[in-house]
Amino acid sequence: MNILEIITKKKNKQELSYAELEYAFMGFLHKQIPDYQMSALLMTICLNELNEKEIFALTDIFIKSGEVRDLTKVDGVCVDKHSTGGVGDKTTLVIGPIVATCGLKMPKMSGRGLGLTGGTIDKLESIPGFQVELTEEEFWAGLKEVGFVNVSQSAKLVPLDKEVYALRDVSGTTESIGLIAVSIMSKKIAGGARNILIDVKYGNGALLKTKEEANAFANLVKKIGEKYQVKVQTIIDSMNIPLGNNIGNALEVIEAMDILQGKQGYLTDLCLKLAANLISMGYNISYEKGYNMAQEAITSGKAYQKFLKFVKFQKGDITKLKVSPNTLEVKSNEEGILKDIDAHKIAKLASQLGCFRNNKEEKIDYGVGIVLKKNLGEYVNQGDILCTLYVKDVNIKVDKECLKCFKIEGGNI
Amino acid sequence: MNILEIITKKKNKQELSYAELEYAFMGFLHKQIPDYQMSALLMTICLNELNEKEIFALTDIFIKSGEVRDLTKVDGVCVDKHSTGGVGDKTTLVIGPIVATCGLKMPKMSGRGLGLTGGTIDKLESIPGFQVELTEEEFWAGLKEVGFVNVSQSAKLVPLDKEVYALRDVSGTTESIGLIAVSIMSKKIAGGARNILIDVKYGNGALLKTKEEANAFANLVKKIGEKYQVKVQTIIDSMNIPLGNNIGNALEVIEAMDILQGKQGYLTDLCLKLAANLISMGYNISYEKGYNMAQEAITSGKAYQKFLKFVKFQKGDITKLKVSPNTLEVKSNEEGILKDIDAHKIAKLASQLGCFRNNKEEKIDYGVGIVLKKNLGEYVNQGDILCTLYVKDVNIKVDKECLKCFKIEGGNI
Repeated sequence: MNILEIITKKKNKQELSYAELEYAFMGFLHKQIPDYQMSALLMTICLNELNEKEIFALTDIFIKSGEVRDLTKVDGVCVDKHSTGGVGDKTTLVIGPIVATCGLKMPKMSGRGLGLTGGTIDKLESIPGFQVELTEEEFWAGLKEVGFVNVSQSAKLVPLDKEVYALRDVSGTTESIGLIAVSIMSKKIAGGARNILIDVKYGNGALLKTKEEANAFANLVKKIGEKYQVKVQTIIDSMNIPLGNNIGNALEVIEAMDILQGKQGYLTDLCLKLAANLISMGYNISYEKGYNMAQEAITSGKAYQKFLKFVKFQKGDITKLKVSPNTLEVKSNEEGILKDIDAHKIAKLASQLGCFRNNKEEKIDYGVGIVLKKNLGEYVNQGDILCTLYVKDVNIKVDKECLKCFKIEGGNI
Repeated sequence: MNILEIITKKKNKQELSYAELEYAFMGFLHKQIPDYQMSALLMTICLNELNEKEIFALTDIFIKSGEVRDLTKVDGVCVDKHSTGGVGDKTTLVIGPIVATCGLKMPKMSGRGLGLTGGTIDKLESIPGFQVELTEEEFWAGLKEVGFVNVSQSAKLVPLDKEVYALRDVSGTTESIGLIAVSIMSKKIAGGARNILIDVKYGNGALLKTKEEANAFANLVKKIGEKYQVKVQTIIDSMNIPLGNNIGNALEVIEAMDILQGKQGYLTDLCLKLAANLISMGYNISYEKGYNMAQEAITSGKAYQKFLKFVKFQKGDITKLKVSPNTLEVKSNEEGILKDIDAHKIAKLASQLGCFRNNKEEKIDYGVGIVLKKNLGEYVNQGDILCTLYVKDVNIKVDKECLKCFKIEGGNI
């Protein structure tokens, strides 16, 4: 087999066989296929997509690239959730403590920054000392004692995904329904999950751009689940604005803590909805009962305590969490109602501040980011602060276009 | 500017500005943009193509990436020819000596293996001692004394093309009309050419697959020529069979020598036609006169002597040219007339024997290759030798499919 022929085949929209996909991807894992060939192949996949047969084959190749975890020995019901990403998505950090408070077990593996959307692992690493890698013993102990652990992908489980994910992130090849499905489902299945909730976001700020893509994706992950006897539920979410007020690694951890301490808003509602689904799925009870349990976990303060216990168990020191001391304020030139916040432009702005990676070697600045000061529907006066930028250097130059992310209409001037 | 945004823009079929193309390509040249990002961008260009504006911009960026040679100080008329590649294309090695014999000057820069088509520089390097890099002084001296020099791209002229060419070769991104035009024209223009003949091949074995692509390409190079006041002529050639009998580096040098010593056939006819065009273009005389001069150069033996002088000037020792001593014979199972030889399958076979590179680091085996023993239209008996394979190891396993490159029809059995 020859990698150039495989690339050319996919470039010409021909189907790749299991053997060809295995040759290319496992060759890449074993460093026999260099980065520049894999990124070219990934780009052909982004532009010409994989068909179902290829997706099933690739999921299988991904799973078999490493070990498979057996969660049946866990004392309790394991649930898992995955979001396909959105700007400012810190739902995992809210939901994990909630469901663990309710007695479920959530052994979560997360990824690093993917394109313009950030990754939960990067957010957790903004907490000084936080260990995103646990030993086998620590992992099981955390699940038993805390009920929620959140680790980076173990090198033992789906090692192929780790390599492919890192390359996609820095080669403009994140936006492929097939590759996204393979990446998520292989990790969930190898991680031993049997009850999975997938929050499928679409819109400007997400990897999936349209409702059609989101539906196709939801169908796909369910089909992959069936192949492996795994229960998969999906929630399709069209909200096209940043998730919450804070964007940026440390800033997002802070907002997750705020929500666990009772902060209200759209993101809180979404987190309760996701948690309710997981609880109802895990215990086989009604959605309403699940919702009440989730809400009680927050109002009782138990979920917040669970969050602190979780951070401490993974050796993070939450008292040392820091944001940049340098801030800039973006003020409104207009007056009126805030009708829209463009998630994609916010993500680009965050990228310019240093929240994300542009290439594999780059380091993230955990303390920078954006805090939105106005919510959708709020009335904005001229001169009001729309957002605060947490920057490394106050002389930073940002693309003016990105600052036009606020749509204000209907004012008197 | 951000490379991921540039990749994504082209992925989404948006036009890239001069500044964006410059940022990406010059960044790649200066190693600020890694291989894996450039190969992803190149793949988006292959699949979504560049428009004319982008092609003009990129040609300009390529030219300005290095020095520009001034050929006006050459005593004589400089001509240059380029072929867009075909399997077994050794026309340069035949035409250079012919036109130099006729008093024209041909300062030729060639490339290394590109995909499945090989490169003239690799062919020349199969001659022990042959120097594909000359000093400035040697270059001018060779042009004066021999009239034909053939060097690899100087690092000073269009350094960007050298880097991009090498990456395209190993990332499945060779097949783009725009990139091919930019590569060829930037080198010709920076090399000082003012009279250029381009032999545009299309078909299975070539980079351009269809007549439409060949026409589009011919139009494009003429338009680029106009921008720089350069005379460009094109010959569109649809022959979809290997050029000549020999495929493989040393084997192709041998066939070029055979033609210069009077061997007849389709390839000889093509070389005479190309040489006639160059001579008529260079001297502003009729094609017929040019053709007669080209033919006389061969029959007089002068062109062959010129070839030997050329090789010696560039320090090659033609007496040491070697092919592999190990051969395998492919015999016919059928009887009938040889109706077609599939150039693409022949190229794949040659690739398996080791004639080409699969990645940037790989070394070519100069002595291996294929010698076709039957010409189109010849009658083939069962058991006749169709071709001889020159192999490194007689136990080599080749893909059976590639051996089905001979179409034999109309026999009695």
